[in-house]
Amino acid sequence: MARRLGRLFKDVQRLVSLSSVNTPLSHPVIQAPVHRFTGGSVRTNFIRAIKELPSALSSKPRDFSLPNSSWGPEMMRLYEHYNSQCEMETEGGEKQKGPWKRLPSYNRILKFATGGVYLSKIIQSKARLFTRNIRDPGAAFEYVLFVNSEEQKCVCIFQAGHLLEGPPGHVHGGAIATMIDTVTGTHATVLSGPVMTANLNINYRSPIPLGSTVLLESSLDKKEGRKTFISCKVTNADGSKVHSETTALFLSINVSHLLLGG
Amino acid sequence: MARRLGRLFKDVQRLVSLSSVNTPLSHPVIQAPVHRFTGGSVRTNFIRAIKELPSALSSKPRDFSLPNSSWGPEMMRLYEHYNSQCEMETEGGEKQKGPWKRLPSYNRILKFATGGVYLSKIIQSKARLFTRNIRDPGAAFEYVLFVNSEEQKCVCIFQAGHLLEGPPGHVHGGAIATMIDTVTGTHATVLSGPVMTANLNINYRSPIPLGSTVLLESSLDKKEGRKTFISCKVTNADGSKVHSETTALFLSINVSHLLLGG
Repeated sequence: MARRLGRLFKDVQRLVSLSSVNTPLSHPVIQAPVHRFTGGSVRTNFIRAIKELPSALSSKPRDFSLPNSSWGPEMMRLYEHYNSQCEMETEGGEKQKGPWKRLPSYNRILKFATGGVYLSKIIQSKARLFTRNIRDPGAAFEYVLFVNSEEQKCVCIFQAGHLLEGPPGHVHGGAIATMIDTVTGTHATVLSGPVMTANLNINYRSPIPLGSTVLLESSLDKKEGRKTFISCKVTNADGSKVHSETTALFLSINVSHLLLGG
Repeated sequence: MARRLGRLFKDVQRLVSLSSVNTPLSHPVIQAPVHRFTGGSVRTNFIRAIKELPSALSSKPRDFSLPNSSWGPEMMRLYEHYNSQCEMETEGGEKQKGPWKRLPSYNRILKFATGGVYLSKIIQSKARLFTRNIRDPGAAFEYVLFVNSEEQKCVCIFQAGHLLEGPPGHVHGGAIATMIDTVTGTHATVLSGPVMTANLNINYRSPIPLGSTVLLESSLDKKEGRKTFISCKVTNADGSKVHSETTALFLSINVSHLLLGG
């Protein structure tokens, strides 16, 4: 059993790094199954889950991090700026070097995730990632993340749509917090593997007008045992105005607990 | 001009207390016009805005804080619990006393708000409150707020729909932050008038399963000049499990600045 679980977690980790790194890890991707570690049916779910992995990967879901018609000039300019510095494969199959890497983004996390204890099958099948739950381009969160492994930095370009209103004409503080959680959580996952958010401490400096494009820049402060400390600054597109400053703390998930629990 | 602005702000404050108290005041309801205090066209907008006030009130928007078919038994039980302790008018026109008051909730804030500096007319007319931007009942944020003026407390019953997913089967940390901002911001507004969020410090203790109903309870810590300090605890429906603990700081808006600026 322990070996089987070990394989599962390797699969999960591989999937996280392959396809789901750009998800909000407020609580970890592999946390959900923890609640189910109590009996035989759980094990069955896990095994079924593993069998379903290939189909989860083959369904070719929409990558929301690619440009669409709603992206304004500011969003496109910043996208091109970072994308041109990305590691890319040329037509001849050669790798073009670059410090940045664009992260894909989907509206489902992992098909085999069976959800929380109270989760009905209906809710489970309809569940969508909060930041990608509206398909109308430009209406809500338009964003793309880039990571720079060498500098341990992460950048997110975010265009705030009309459905994110808080105070009239401005972005809701909760929508800003959502993007901060997404960026810092993704960054922590890139740095430390599966994590959960333990603390978000957000200082709001100036409101963000609806429809505008902003930059979120996160950087590693330090790692201490299970703890990963990340800072995140939100500025306007040219960096001249600070909208918010955040410190965030993430806790790594102790996989050995899970293995012993099986 | 100063007198006209004075009247406008009284109108705004009245409207805030009448119809928009249950909006997320991450940044204040009357903040948006501040960015426009720079010329004649701004003034024109303000005057037009005032003229539009009656129609903004007469359109009878949907009150999202009333029960709908998606509300589960837990949500209904808690709603009835607080609603039965509310101040209500009986059929005979008598007032029935109660410590709690339900706050209505709409998906537009104020029709006359003209938005931020970058805000196009199209975005403006399509703008919707972030927490009420999905009309499908039960899909996203289902919530209702009650205030208790005597105890300086505010309670929110929140049922988390399938479109709020973060980690598989659980609510996105940003969606939780959004509800915390909404509840504490509303509470601060009830206590101190128009405010903006200056800080949110959220400690996440345990994940919230999608589809479950939780309680957010906010209480006044202290008021110091322009500052209002609020605490907020998120628990499961019976209060036995803590999901998160938050301290929040709100700043009152200094209206005299605006008057001098005109």
